[in-house]
Amino acid sequence: MELVTIEEVRAAAERLNGVTVRTPLLPVPSASRNQESSEGSSLWLKPESLQVVGAFKLRGAFNAIAMLDRNRRSRGVIAFSSGNHAQAVAYSARHFGIPAVIVMPDNAPRIKVDSTRSHGAEVIQVPIGDHADVAVALAEERGLTMIPPYDDAAVIAGQGTVGLEIAADLPEVDVVLVPISGGGLAAGVAVAIKALCPSAQVIGVEPELAADTAEGLRLGHQVDWPVDDRARTIADGLRAQPSELTFAHLRKFLDGVVTVSEDEIRSAIQVLARQARLIAEPSGAVATAAYLFRGHDLPVGKTVAILSGGNIDADLLRTILT
Amino acid sequence: MELVTIEEVRAAAERLNGVTVRTPLLPVPSASRNQESSEGSSLWLKPESLQVVGAFKLRGAFNAIAMLDRNRRSRGVIAFSSGNHAQAVAYSARHFGIPAVIVMPDNAPRIKVDSTRSHGAEVIQVPIGDHADVAVALAEERGLTMIPPYDDAAVIAGQGTVGLEIAADLPEVDVVLVPISGGGLAAGVAVAIKALCPSAQVIGVEPELAADTAEGLRLGHQVDWPVDDRARTIADGLRAQPSELTFAHLRKFLDGVVTVSEDEIRSAIQVLARQARLIAEPSGAVATAAYLFRGHDLPVGKTVAILSGGNIDADLLRTILT
Repeated sequence: MELVTIEEVRAAAERLNGVTVRTPLLPVPSASRNQESSEGSSLWLKPESLQVVGAFKLRGAFNAIAMLDRNRRSRGVIAFSSGNHAQAVAYSARHFGIPAVIVMPDNAPRIKVDSTRSHGAEVIQVPIGDHADVAVALAEERGLTMIPPYDDAAVIAGQGTVGLEIAADLPEVDVVLVPISGGGLAAGVAVAIKALCPSAQVIGVEPELAADTAEGLRLGHQVDWPVDDRARTIADGLRAQPSELTFAHLRKFLDGVVTVSEDEIRSAIQVLARQARLIAEPSGAVATAAYLFRGHDLPVGKTVAILSGGNIDADLLRTILT
Repeated sequence: MELVTIEEVRAAAERLNGVTVRTPLLPVPSASRNQESSEGSSLWLKPESLQVVGAFKLRGAFNAIAMLDRNRRSRGVIAFSSGNHAQAVAYSARHFGIPAVIVMPDNAPRIKVDSTRSHGAEVIQVPIGDHADVAVALAEERGLTMIPPYDDAAVIAGQGTVGLEIAADLPEVDVVLVPISGGGLAAGVAVAIKALCPSAQVIGVEPELAADTAEGLRLGHQVDWPVDDRARTIADGLRAQPSELTFAHLRKFLDGVVTVSEDEIRSAIQVLARQARLIAEPSGAVATAAYLFRGHDLPVGKTVAILSGGNIDADLLRTILT
């Protein structure tokens, strides 16, 4: 299988220049771990919540759309997603002035539907479970190009620009903590970090309740967790599983995977709000949770936690801040 | 009176390089004003809440301490403040490995006292009203150098680096909205913007309940509002008044001052949380409030609102997010 290269990540960065926010690395000197093993480690955040759509997803979606043949692109794009990928595709399509159709399950939160529409996309809501089939049929019917959320080299290369920026800003980084769901972000970041900072370790982070990749890498092959099991975690953005393509990257490049509990995710959201003044969604907080609560499972050193997104329901945020 | 020059701001930027976060400009395409006059305007945020101490204050305090003669600096520094300046001086002193004493009123919020101590400073709490006198006496007794929160050319030059970065990132900026309290940030930013983007307008923002500078600039001379009046605003960081030095800068460089209500400040905190995933303290939200609710008083065009800080009490944040 052909893996994404650092050259493809660099080319993606060129395309994203002026479109995505060049997020800074934020030192958090006051973030102390709950273990004695914290000695010698220090934390930086990579706040992808600051992207216009509130998550890193814009990098991959935009890169994929930018790489389409101009004629094909002009006919429009389509995606099925109820999450941050939907908004990323909608925003990118508007940038190019092309139609975007987003197929969402009919139980998607109102705020995500509205937000996707606000970027100019046509939202079609269908019963949950049907949305992949509907999207494929619509793509065919209208000549739209499907933009996958992670199972795509252009998407992985786009997400990899997060790693490119980390390597540029902190070349002496020792540990990069990255959330894993479909694996696009983790794959892209790992490609970039391993090419540019070969001595750094890239560690994936999953919720305990959706730890299919941790298990799969331990066993050496992909495993399939029932969707109902994965749906238990509060981290709604981490309920997907890697594709063959992303799993191949993770198997080759990741140095390990750690898991965090639901309570640890909630605590990390609190710490991020209080000590870094950043709003994180649960999926966005897992890497910080790993730093804070899984220090004994992690290498010591200069650590970057990728805060992948900040689109959290207002009620949930209020509850967690209590 | 000698005003701060753009060369002094540039020199400050050299000193701050690698110490302060180079905060990005964040586009907020979804921020729509509550007036029809919003046509043609667009908003970027300059999130100084992302500095290690949660506010721009680190820029001025660090620059002032860095400029001290080495021998004098080694004896230590002192400040009186219950707010973000306290943490900025404490953090900067630790960077240089020198003693720092912060004199705080004995009713200062516990969290600010703890946070200042966490940066290694000695905190001395005294009855409110006495803290300036105690600080002056202590400075004399221990040979410490007083670092003023705004009435100081080195502090103003440090805060001006915010303007330098705005000019570099958005040279075509039309409007810069900056909170005014003691006036150090507004003075420094105005020096930088007027030098580098002479066609841009710099507009100060005050709470209606602490609008001494708006009144003073209208009358052409400083006015003194009773401290009890100024204490009414929720924006606890905007209760100070300019000094002669900062007022002279504001009089020369500002294109206007607008005021915002307490409700508008609360609404802006909500908008910043939901649409930009940023936690703002009330003082940090006034510039955004001006953009959202005072559009008819502002020039049209590419607008930067400086989000000056994010140190908000958890209970207050929760209440506002409800």
